[in-house]
Amino acid sequence: MSTLTAPASQGILRQYEYVRGYTEAICKPLEPEDTVVQPIVDVSPPKWHMAHTSWFFETFVLTPYLPGYKVFHEQFSYLFNSYYNAVGSRVQRDQRSTLTRPPLRDIYAYRQYVDKHMQQLLHTIDDRVFEELQPVLALGLQHEQQHQELLITDIKYILSTNPMLPVYTPRAVPKKALGAVEAKFLEVPGGKYKIGYTGDEFCFDNELGVHEVLVQDFEIMNRLVTNGEYLAFMNDGGYSDFRHWLDEGFALVNRDQLQAPLYWVKQENEWHRYTMHGLEKVDPDEPVCHISFYEADAYANWAGKRLLTEFEWEAASQVYPPATGNFIESGILEPVAADPDTDGLQQLYGDVWEWTYSAYHPYPGFEKAPGAIGEYNGKFMLNQMVLRGGSCATSESHIRPTYRNFFHPDKRWQYNGIRLANR
Amino acid sequence: MSTLTAPASQGILRQYEYVRGYTEAICKPLEPEDTVVQPIVDVSPPKWHMAHTSWFFETFVLTPYLPGYKVFHEQFSYLFNSYYNAVGSRVQRDQRSTLTRPPLRDIYAYRQYVDKHMQQLLHTIDDRVFEELQPVLALGLQHEQQHQELLITDIKYILSTNPMLPVYTPRAVPKKALGAVEAKFLEVPGGKYKIGYTGDEFCFDNELGVHEVLVQDFEIMNRLVTNGEYLAFMNDGGYSDFRHWLDEGFALVNRDQLQAPLYWVKQENEWHRYTMHGLEKVDPDEPVCHISFYEADAYANWAGKRLLTEFEWEAASQVYPPATGNFIESGILEPVAADPDTDGLQQLYGDVWEWTYSAYHPYPGFEKAPGAIGEYNGKFMLNQMVLRGGSCATSESHIRPTYRNFFHPDKRWQYNGIRLANR
Amino acid sequence: MSTLTAPASQGILRQYEYVRGYTEAICKPLEPEDTVVQPIVDVSPPKWHMAHTSWFFETFVLTPYLPGYKVFHEQFSYLFNSYYNAVGSRVQRDQRSTLTRPPLRDIYAYRQYVDKHMQQLLHTIDDRVFEELQPVLALGLQHEQQHQELLITDIKYILSTNPMLPVYTPRAVPKKALGAVEAKFLEVPGGKYKIGYTGDEFCFDNELGVHEVLVQDFEIMNRLVTNGEYLAFMNDGGYSDFRHWLDEGFALVNRDQLQAPLYWVKQENEWHRYTMHGLEKVDPDEPVCHISFYEADAYANWAGKRLLTEFEWEAASQVYPPATGNFIESGILEPVAADPDTDGLQQLYGDVWEWTYSAYHPYPGFEKAPGAIGEYNGKFMLNQMVLRGGSCATSESHIRPTYRNFFHPDKRWQYNGIRLANR
Amino acid sequence: MSTLTAPASQGILRQYEYVRGYTEAICKPLEPEDTVVQPIVDVSPPKWHMAHTSWFFETFVLTPYLPGYKVFHEQFSYLFNSYYNAVGSRVQRDQRSTLTRPPLRDIYAYRQYVDKHMQQLLHTIDDRVFEELQPVLALGLQHEQQHQELLITDIKYILSTNPMLPVYTPRAVPKKALGAVEAKFLEVPGGKYKIGYTGDEFCFDNELGVHEVLVQDFEIMNRLVTNGEYLAFMNDGGYSDFRHWLDEGFALVNRDQLQAPLYWVKQENEWHRYTMHGLEKVDPDEPVCHISFYEADAYANWAGKRLLTEFEWEAASQVYPPATGNFIESGILEPVAADPDTDGLQQLYGDVWEWTYSAYHPYPGFEKAPGAIGEYNGKFMLNQMVLRGGSCATSESHIRPTYRNFFHPDKRWQYNGIRLANR
Repeated sequence: MSTLTAPASQGILRQYEYVRGYTEAICKPLEPEDTVVQPIVDVSPPKWHMAHTSWFFETFVLTPYLPGYKVFHEQFSYLFNSYYNAVGSRVQRDQRSTLTRPPLRDIYAYRQYVDKHMQQLLHTIDDRVFEELQPVLALGLQHEQQHQELLITDIKYILSTNPMLPVYTPRAVPKKALGAVEAKFLEVPGGKYKIGYTGDEFCFDNELGVHEVLVQDFEIMNRLVTNGEYLAFMNDGGYSDFRHWLDEGFALVNRDQLQAPLYWVKQENEWHRYTMHGLEKVDPDEPVCHISFYEADAYANWAGKRLLTEFEWEAASQVYPPATGNFIESGILEPVAADPDTDGLQQLYGDVWEWTYSAYHPYPGFEKAPGAIGEYNGKFMLNQMVLRGGSCATSESHIRPTYRNFFHPDKRWQYNGIRLANR
Repeated sequence: MSTLTAPASQGILRQYEYVRGYTEAICKPLEPEDTVVQPIVDVSPPKWHMAHTSWFFETFVLTPYLPGYKVFHEQFSYLFNSYYNAVGSRVQRDQRSTLTRPPLRDIYAYRQYVDKHMQQLLHTIDDRVFEELQPVLALGLQHEQQHQELLITDIKYILSTNPMLPVYTPRAVPKKALGAVEAKFLEVPGGKYKIGYTGDEFCFDNELGVHEVLVQDFEIMNRLVTNGEYLAFMNDGGYSDFRHWLDEGFALVNRDQLQAPLYWVKQENEWHRYTMHGLEKVDPDEPVCHISFYEADAYANWAGKRLLTEFEWEAASQVYPPATGNFIESGILEPVAADPDTDGLQQLYGDVWEWTYSAYHPYPGFEKAPGAIGEYNGKFMLNQMVLRGGSCATSESHIRPTYRNFFHPDKRWQYNGIRLANR
Repeated sequence: MSTLTAPASQGILRQYEYVRGYTEAICKPLEPEDTVVQPIVDVSPPKWHMAHTSWFFETFVLTPYLPGYKVFHEQFSYLFNSYYNAVGSRVQRDQRSTLTRPPLRDIYAYRQYVDKHMQQLLHTIDDRVFEELQPVLALGLQHEQQHQELLITDIKYILSTNPMLPVYTPRAVPKKALGAVEAKFLEVPGGKYKIGYTGDEFCFDNELGVHEVLVQDFEIMNRLVTNGEYLAFMNDGGYSDFRHWLDEGFALVNRDQLQAPLYWVKQENEWHRYTMHGLEKVDPDEPVCHISFYEADAYANWAGKRLLTEFEWEAASQVYPPATGNFIESGILEPVAADPDTDGLQQLYGDVWEWTYSAYHPYPGFEKAPGAIGEYNGKFMLNQMVLRGGSCATSESHIRPTYRNFFHPDKRWQYNGIRLANR
Repeated sequence: MSTLTAPASQGILRQYEYVRGYTEAICKPLEPEDTVVQPIVDVSPPKWHMAHTSWFFETFVLTPYLPGYKVFHEQFSYLFNSYYNAVGSRVQRDQRSTLTRPPLRDIYAYRQYVDKHMQQLLHTIDDRVFEELQPVLALGLQHEQQHQELLITDIKYILSTNPMLPVYTPRAVPKKALGAVEAKFLEVPGGKYKIGYTGDEFCFDNELGVHEVLVQDFEIMNRLVTNGEYLAFMNDGGYSDFRHWLDEGFALVNRDQLQAPLYWVKQENEWHRYTMHGLEKVDPDEPVCHISFYEADAYANWAGKRLLTEFEWEAASQVYPPATGNFIESGILEPVAADPDTDGLQQLYGDVWEWTYSAYHPYPGFEKAPGAIGEYNGKFMLNQMVLRGGSCATSESHIRPTYRNFFHPDKRWQYNGIRLANR
């Protein structure tokens, strides 16, 4: 897994152009109408993502650092601010589908305008200013990569609500049946582990505050839980037996009549799932995906195991050196089956985010950055659970062993899955 | 006011082409993204209107009457059925924004496909079948005209939610200040009036069941209530004095913090209103518009007058022969001020629908048509109030003195206004 | 059917004592806890009814008319005002269960205090003042009788929510099986009928504005629709066939999964209903009861008939002279079967309120009374349907042929039933 | 702080009688109507608490252990089961106010019936069975003590919704002004601390799984945050400055228009608070109380400090040996000011529960008990925050240094307050 290096401004310009171009590549298969709707509050219109990421560079880089820069449009700060109170008022989060205008072509023009000025800035900036600016640039690129992942998950959700179940993009390469990989549990020795980011490249503020944590001996499952295993839970009445569930999870299951992961539909008595490539039969060897924390936890209880804590996960990542994974760059955009020819721990990175039984709280000594950037992470540190390892919609250059993703425990529209621990 | 004549099939084909073309002319200024959103459940996406009106002809004309007709797309009946239970299951009314696909160009292709086959049908149909088909054709055209009015009001609502307040179309002709028209009350003598449609051209089933109604002597105001008069009500604390209001109306005012008609905004201490031509200063001589029944009734109480019943309105239309009005064909798309050079009753047709204090109930002997067409009107005959006279978004060829429009009393997004009676 | 006479003050005092005592007799079987809860907003706590009716006399009679009268408690006006904006702020309607204090014994003390002072007033009042006061006194007694009916229906609802299904009072006399009465339709000739109250005793303001209405020839069913007939509708799939239903009614049926009248439960494959005497088997000969307007209308459509308008009902009451009925005074508190030995029209009064297909609107020339009393009826004249004839929970002395009761079309907790018309 | 000892059955019988009597003493000042309402779903009717605690002994002790025991009433298991799925269906949690019957006197009879049989059981039980039964008995008593605390907080909430603001009980002893205690921060050295219960008396399952946790050096505030300090936060605009707040907390503040702790009301420009002794002026030296986690956290941010984790709290309790506190036994039922004459750490126990910044999660190796008792704690281990130390409504014999209380972060009706850490 690579990380963003912080070279001279020309190196970062190449990264900038790569990341920005990737966003547009993701949106290429969309119709203009796909880019404006917001079927649930969690899902933002793709057009909004494209504009918001540009607004980020305009607001935090161009306006303060490029002399004489004029914003593309006076109202865009109101339209495309996400949640930064310090930057001012904004379109309410649940009102983003009101933005049928500016039309898509204007959003592309906005992106080009910002890109042109970013190029100008990076060609002319002096070293001293660049040094000051560099962390903001890195943050802007990481931020855009986060929105690329959201673009994938939001597009998937938007298309899935359409009764025609449109294909986002056909599978480039047909799947090959690899055969199942037997579940095994690998030892992780207890002891003090250093938690948090210690390198000198980019990381988010929530990974700082490095500290030691005492971890007990435990075992980690060698691969992700599969659709086939999850189906066994379903077929064993897993969704109707309260004993497996947290109380709030079971209430949710009953309120929403949940019976399977998100995107699963039964057709002619066989389970299918909506994917970025259209409706497909459920593959028993692929990792189960699009489940809530509640479902992950209930499955673990049913299986007589448990979820890892985020500290255990990070400890395991230190014991079993990082391997590659199925990231957005593969173009598959869905999790893939584990490899029968690989020994040891696999799928730790990519495929699906792994729910941990750790609330998203600050590390000791956590400090918010001053100003608007300080709203990036800290204010969300409650009622959410940490996920680790990235998914098939994450950029490889975006993930780290110390990376802390977080979602409310009921959220299912991200590529979230299950890794088990044995106590 | 003209009405649809029912000539030979060639005559109706010309009408068909005119009406269908008008729908597309209305949608011309829209961006694709404008055509898919649904900000409130009352408002349907323009794309949906365009497809649904085509579905109507496909379902009720082409499929049963054109031999060998193949539907454009198997799923469209599911996608674009509005509320006809008899035709089968359908996309739920509040889920129409899920239809980002089919894209707008496919909807245009659908319209062309239906139009081509309608031409083929009307060129080849024999007279006996045409006679049977003719009422359905007439209904289909009236139906499309109703959706043209909804297109205008829905587009207005959609654009109004956008913080940029986009202009749908600039005013073709600048407004001229005509000067105020003094309010007068004109006598309508009491007696038995024949209510309902007695002609031999098209009317809706809810206008049938002609019957006599006893009306008492009353007086009708010579023009519509103006913005200036309504402002006097507002400035007199009209929205905060419970004595003017029906109990449910006052509860609504307080719940939603209503202080003015829909689309009114105060800027620099002056009232403006969003129009199809963008934000404009409120013109005191124009008819007040986009108000609920509750507001109309409260205004009438404050003014010491009352609203008409639908029977009084129809009686007045018989006493004062019909004049022309400001309909959609004027292209103004907003109500216009009364004419100081006109005596007698004016603005009875066009400009704004006039709320009556009559619940939308069946006339004596009302019968639903058999089959799906029977769901057109009858099943909505509760909890709605009758409005009369058409608006600036109504086609002139669509309106009649006996025409009964109906909306729930809280609805404000239609061009609804006030005509007063004096008891 | 008697009506309240307006005698000298001693006569009215006897009436006063009778009516007030009746309220307390109704509450006698209750536990203190029964008197404070409010399971739905429509249902008020019995304790609140007892206090509110006393507040009415205190506010509108004693305070203005009894020199030196001191209110029982300064806060009671805030606690026990129902909806009179003119009298000031008050406990919100949906917050009445907060009034665990004052305890029940204090409410009784309040009633005694008011009664004592009412006696003092009526013993000392001079004739001129009495004449002025008399309409308010009559209104106060009618008001308390309305609340007696609400007490019965609210107590029934409160007890019905208790899983123990408590008996309010055992049946005094066992039911006797009378046998079914065949349905017949009786002619009511069309013509002009005088609508509204023309006598010189008490009536509500909504009965005034006497006016002539043209009624067409029609036929009225000789008795109420029975449970047995309604069961045939249910067994014929009535609740699942959209063709019988108003659109909003069918939506409600599906949202709330309605399958039978309120209070019906199936036990061991047999329908029972909760009554004031506990759970009983459904008696096929008794009138069906506790149904919404939607259910009444759907039943009528299924039966190929329709509901009457309120004008037709009042016309029929003039053609078929009033008979007695099953009122609250019978102590049965549930509707009873029609009498096989009676010819002609029966059950027009008592048993169940009969839903009409008439919206509750003002009669021509309706005027609200000045001041708080003007809020009694007028402000509710929208979105509600008129019911006629009284029920088994209505006082005989309270009902009149011109009496207009009104409820929203979805309400089921009143004793509402069905009378059919044949067109 | 004492703990329940586990003596011979006679000893536990004395405890049983004491605890059971205490519950009834708490309910003594209530009217029957106070005991049945449920103003919010969190608050249970006092009558329900009285019955549910008896049901606990009946279900888990008498039925399995007392030969020939007949339940008091067949339906009570349905009525008074709280959340034990394993025991069967039950009255939904938000429907407890439907239980106007059985009346209060029957609930007392139920308690006496259970008590009588408990006495019989404990007088006749043999030692071997007693040993098996003893943990269940201990749990039953602890359970009843938990409900005693809930009785106090629920009664306070119920009475507070009454516009008359009734006094639960007058203050026995007038408050004496002690003077403010200066805030100081006391050192707690970092290192490994043993977390969880290691004694051999009663503890809950959530305290087991003793494990070592690494704690960093920190400082703990010597007393609780006072009303006066919290007022400074309020007066500094604390509720309107987003920078102090977690995002969900600030959303809640705006949605509910929060401006002060629960029960605070401003009268004549001075803050008062509703207490168990009626409305009182806010005392600046008393601990602030009835605040959410969000408010506690926002205050800490404003003050430049932070909340403790539950592990830090437990570490501090080991460094600073336990002192006594203001528990329910004092009869004050409100928090009291810190003592100026006491050095070092005070108010660690009693007065108010202290919000920690620790999610309520299982300790390593946590195991649910088999059967219904296993539903006691484990299924609630998500989305709730741990509170430590007990409150003025907690029994002294109920609290321990390792005791983990837990509530959702928005809950305010418990006696919750703030203890600060300095990093």
